[in-house]
Amino acid sequence: MNNSSSSPIWIWYPGDYEIWLGNQMNNRRTERGAFFPHFWKMDSHYVLVEFSKKIDLAVAEEIEIAVEGTFNIKLDGKLQFGMPKKFLLPAGKYNLSIKVWNQATPPTIFINGKTVKSDNSWKVTYEDKEWIDESGKASDTSATIYMDAGGWVDFDAADKLPSLYKLATEERKAVAVSYAQGGRLIDFGKETFGFLRFSALSGKGKINIYYGESKEEALDTEFCETLDQLIVDGNKVTDEALAITCFIEEIYTLANSKAFRYVYITKDDGVDFKELSMMYEFKPEVQRGSFKCNDEEVNQIWNVGAYTMQLTTRECFIDGIKRDRWIWSGDAYQSYLMNYYLSFDSQTVKNTTWALRGKDPVTSHTNTILDYTFFWFLGIYDYYMYTGDRHFISQVYPRMQTLMDYVLGRTNVNGMVEGQTGDWVFVDWADDFMDKHGELSFEQVLFAKSLETMALCADLVKNNTDKVKYAGLALALRDKLIPAFWNETRQALVHNRLNGIQQEQITRYANMFASFFNYLTPEQQQQIKVSVLLNDSVMKISTPYMRFYELEALCTLGEQKEVMKEMKAYWGGMIREGATSFWEKYNPTDKGTQHLAMYGRPYGKSLCHAWGASPIYLLGKYYLGIQPVKAGYSEFSITPTLGGLKWMEGTVPTPNGEIKLYMNENTIKVTATEGKGYLTFTSKSKPNASKGIIEKMDDNKYRLMIDEKEEVVVNYK
Amino acid sequence: MNNSSSSPIWIWYPGDYEIWLGNQMNNRRTERGAFFPHFWKMDSHYVLVEFSKKIDLAVAEEIEIAVEGTFNIKLDGKLQFGMPKKFLLPAGKYNLSIKVWNQATPPTIFINGKTVKSDNSWKVTYEDKEWIDESGKASDTSATIYMDAGGWVDFDAADKLPSLYKLATEERKAVAVSYAQGGRLIDFGKETFGFLRFSALSGKGKINIYYGESKEEALDTEFCETLDQLIVDGNKVTDEALAITCFIEEIYTLANSKAFRYVYITKDDGVDFKELSMMYEFKPEVQRGSFKCNDEEVNQIWNVGAYTMQLTTRECFIDGIKRDRWIWSGDAYQSYLMNYYLSFDSQTVKNTTWALRGKDPVTSHTNTILDYTFFWFLGIYDYYMYTGDRHFISQVYPRMQTLMDYVLGRTNVNGMVEGQTGDWVFVDWADDFMDKHGELSFEQVLFAKSLETMALCADLVKNNTDKVKYAGLALALRDKLIPAFWNETRQALVHNRLNGIQQEQITRYANMFASFFNYLTPEQQQQIKVSVLLNDSVMKISTPYMRFYELEALCTLGEQKEVMKEMKAYWGGMIREGATSFWEKYNPTDKGTQHLAMYGRPYGKSLCHAWGASPIYLLGKYYLGIQPVKAGYSEFSITPTLGGLKWMEGTVPTPNGEIKLYMNENTIKVTATEGKGYLTFTSKSKPNASKGIIEKMDDNKYRLMIDEKEEVVVNYK
Repeated sequence: MNNSSSSPIWIWYPGDYEIWLGNQMNNRRTERGAFFPHFWKMDSHYVLVEFSKKIDLAVAEEIEIAVEGTFNIKLDGKLQFGMPKKFLLPAGKYNLSIKVWNQATPPTIFINGKTVKSDNSWKVTYEDKEWIDESGKASDTSATIYMDAGGWVDFDAADKLPSLYKLATEERKAVAVSYAQGGRLIDFGKETFGFLRFSALSGKGKINIYYGESKEEALDTEFCETLDQLIVDGNKVTDEALAITCFIEEIYTLANSKAFRYVYITKDDGVDFKELSMMYEFKPEVQRGSFKCNDEEVNQIWNVGAYTMQLTTRECFIDGIKRDRWIWSGDAYQSYLMNYYLSFDSQTVKNTTWALRGKDPVTSHTNTILDYTFFWFLGIYDYYMYTGDRHFISQVYPRMQTLMDYVLGRTNVNGMVEGQTGDWVFVDWADDFMDKHGELSFEQVLFAKSLETMALCADLVKNNTDKVKYAGLALALRDKLIPAFWNETRQALVHNRLNGIQQEQITRYANMFASFFNYLTPEQQQQIKVSVLLNDSVMKISTPYMRFYELEALCTLGEQKEVMKEMKAYWGGMIREGATSFWEKYNPTDKGTQHLAMYGRPYGKSLCHAWGASPIYLLGKYYLGIQPVKAGYSEFSITPTLGGLKWMEGTVPTPNGEIKLYMNENTIKVTATEGKGYLTFTSKSKPNASKGIIEKMDDNKYRLMIDEKEEVVVNYK
Repeated sequence: MNNSSSSPIWIWYPGDYEIWLGNQMNNRRTERGAFFPHFWKMDSHYVLVEFSKKIDLAVAEEIEIAVEGTFNIKLDGKLQFGMPKKFLLPAGKYNLSIKVWNQATPPTIFINGKTVKSDNSWKVTYEDKEWIDESGKASDTSATIYMDAGGWVDFDAADKLPSLYKLATEERKAVAVSYAQGGRLIDFGKETFGFLRFSALSGKGKINIYYGESKEEALDTEFCETLDQLIVDGNKVTDEALAITCFIEEIYTLANSKAFRYVYITKDDGVDFKELSMMYEFKPEVQRGSFKCNDEEVNQIWNVGAYTMQLTTRECFIDGIKRDRWIWSGDAYQSYLMNYYLSFDSQTVKNTTWALRGKDPVTSHTNTILDYTFFWFLGIYDYYMYTGDRHFISQVYPRMQTLMDYVLGRTNVNGMVEGQTGDWVFVDWADDFMDKHGELSFEQVLFAKSLETMALCADLVKNNTDKVKYAGLALALRDKLIPAFWNETRQALVHNRLNGIQQEQITRYANMFASFFNYLTPEQQQQIKVSVLLNDSVMKISTPYMRFYELEALCTLGEQKEVMKEMKAYWGGMIREGATSFWEKYNPTDKGTQHLAMYGRPYGKSLCHAWGASPIYLLGKYYLGIQPVKAGYSEFSITPTLGGLKWMEGTVPTPNGEIKLYMNENTIKVTATEGKGYLTFTSKSKPNASKGIIEKMDDNKYRLMIDEKEEVVVNYK
């Protein structure tokens, strides 16, 4: 919430700009020179929006008005002439409203006066229902739904038009150029993303550009996933994929950004250029989180993870930079969690949440995927816990209701969800058969957690009817989970039920989620650790996506040492294979170019995929051991675990501060500049602290309240 | 449905272009130089649409591709390179799909090959749900909803871009110029609509333009409803209302069209122009219907009505050309009916139906008005009856369902509708008090008819479940109507019930609709004729809008002679007051400028309002007596009534033909070039016919089957 003394910002209908911006971003995907938009409904902004503000001025005040769209100004419902750039607001109390129409881009306004400024306290509606009857009397608008305006703090000047927003760019040079198969192969040294640029482009003829995340891909002109074609003709060049022709400047920069490390160029003899460089395109982020330890391999994993996140954090969080360049809910959910331990970029979490949800009516699951609908809900409550931003919950709550209505309208007689025709039951990319039919335990576990999330958010927006309703539905489903899926003989949740009958297959998914959601008894948790999580006969997970949760489940069961080994083997394995960013899928038993293939295509796999970066999250939450206990870290918990390391140090960002931690085998140092909470640790002998009183819990467990901003040092054994 | 031998047309998602075009049109309204958009939700097009067609080619074929938007081409799901203007379709059987993204204007395509052409047989979807799994296998899209493409026959060339559609224009000169109050008053001779043009505009200074449908309005610079302001500065001119600056050509034409007869101009001394003319803007229509009789006043009424319709028939049917320039459902419903007896312009009926309905979710009644929701339903079945176009019903049926869901979700415990906060219960502009609270009999009658319409349309689209459901709901409501509202003592339906109790007031509305919907017994019909319709103590109707139905009700009761007198008094009255088009409201007891005022504003009234043109409909349907009995006039009925005239002749258009009729006091001549049906008439003595066999019905009633294209002459007495 801005107040009148702060800078004005551009404002819009909440979510509308984010959805529109998400469209721009999603639609930059190409495949071999073809535009490749997504296959679910693409929503857009309300084209007509009214902005309003109650004015109370002692003296008249001139305001500057900047608008994206055709607009009018009304004072207490009375229309004012034209579309002025400046307007004199009279003294007095009245309602100022500005109604804007824009088909192409979201209706937005920027108002700047001495005291009257556009900010999130303005009200917006897409339907004011304010009509005037025959006698001149205005209608009762008490049922009109007004929302608080949306707006970003960055759009704080009249000339920063939201519709012209662009990510930042910086020039990057190639690190090596070689000649192969009659063409030029350019290596940019590591996975990167941006716009190629040609200097001294001239002559007449065709240039073929083949992009590769690997050298093999760039050189494979027939199967590389992305390519471009330029037709140079004297002073003009045509980008054939985009059907755009322009004049050649000193440097010609392509209009669409691409993901690559290598670029392979072939060309007609009549055409030439001097140098190929690129404009690296990125979201400027401050890396507020950090991690360092005695094991250099772990440090490298963290750094490659952070770079993977940097590349995939754009207008929204996307899955991968070569493919799909789309916002996927399950992928985004992990990006949110990693982000809380890296950049704490709340804006991008909100953008992604809006863009994923789109508008009503709901006509399919999020991204068409049943499980992705549930991850969308889960991400919202997490956001509240990490940021404490209750206002966002109230803005997005109406769309949580309608999405949950969609889910509830498709449950079966048992009140459970099943995939219906047109639904994608994803779960994970698996190397062996996985049944997607009937009631999947995994989907029910996520469904239950989503219902609990609805109840929590209903409470936050003070909707008690909804709270009672959703809490009741959650409880009813929770009560069915164990009877339906727990197999006592096999000491695990089975994968699915068909016609009410438990099926043979056991997979890791439901078991690990049920574990860290605390849907199992402590005994069951210990049972599944042996029967599923550490049992090699249960189908292995080969995506970093589900490894994320698998290792999280093990961490919650205190298996940090085991997880550290796994992390080094799996993520370290990718790095040993030459990864400069983490992959969509990694099977350690694959060899050579097998690592590049997926979806039946030799280079189908994305070599920079956000879900590959989970060590960022695991190291922050389960080794540094820092997480919020109350919303926005007003209360936190710190339970550091070396997990086999000799020492570690790191920083975890909080909304307006940070928590720093250093730990070795006999010292823990903590500095928390915001909030308070317990540091919990184990010590064989009685520990001591530089400040505060250490309390002994059971056995070797101790805790110390951290509630001041200075460093606290604990000696333990 | 086009087939492959016909011309290709531009195609789009059904309704999307019409909704977008409606926005363009609605948003041209201004009030005293201020942009004046409507106050209900403005929907727009799906921004991402897939067009597809099953191809079966013996030989390869090159197609020309024109697209409004960014697009891709797929053959059986395989993406093709770039966005080509020409593409070689290979021989064979496969699915061709083109996916288009366009935020600003609707995604549209135009495909022209030897046999492959874009037409309404192409399929479109906003959500194909076609994803590819890890192994490269495509998803099951059997649940994807594909619609037939929308498209107009006029957009039949690659360069006729739908987004650039404009109405036709023609230059018109002023008929008189005079000087008054220091300014220039220009008279264009009659109500008109278009763009003012200044010749030889030069100098430096301001020009004020005041428009008037009356001389009084144009001269009243402070209160005229529409005005413009130009700032001339050498070779540049700025339109202040639109904030557009441009270079002055030989002739400067304003960018927005206005309604006026008079224009009053004042200006600074430093600025000058030579002549003021205008570009008349109009929808080119063939006037296929006609009416002429011995009474010149009636002929003039018909002609002024036809001109009123010409002015208000634009991209869609609007209410009035000065105000509101919007599509209103109740107004449009009457325009449809008049149109069937005038231009038979089915395209504009469809455009208006789509534009009024917009998209889901439904968040308010149509135009926010309870009764206007019902008129929207009624218009659709009428359209089917007059045109026989069942395909349109199937295209729009899904939106009929969701609008009716909205209505049914807001019924009270009696299953009746009541206005809720934010709903506008309109009924009519009335001069005296009219209660809008509780259950209005008028609204229930329209609701019952809407449910019957749903059942009929469900049957047309072969949705038997819906048919049974809506028929049941209609019957249940019908059964409640008479018990709830009929007052035996007063022999009329009362206006409303509050808390289940009949209120005192009796109004004409429900009584007249119940009469021509046949919701009353023949006895009740005769009773309300006396107790309500011809009873001067019941509040008089002072809008042509409700007079339309009042006179229709009287006509269905055989009161053509009485109606003829009323028509001459009421519409003739407007003409005697100087009307060159019919008005929004007319109270014969008003004097002078009282005729111009409305909504508490001296020139608030619209002097060219579509609902003023009802004699077009009444004369065609109840004097010529021609109407369809089966869809599209495959069967018609002709029951001509002179109603006091000595002779009349006229033409009523049918989808692909016409019915001509001449009648005097002893001869009837009929030529029907399409369909067949009975001519029914009364004769004191035995009549004879030039062809066919006349059957005697009861009393003096006779009928003759008309089933050939040649003229049939009947002599009667």
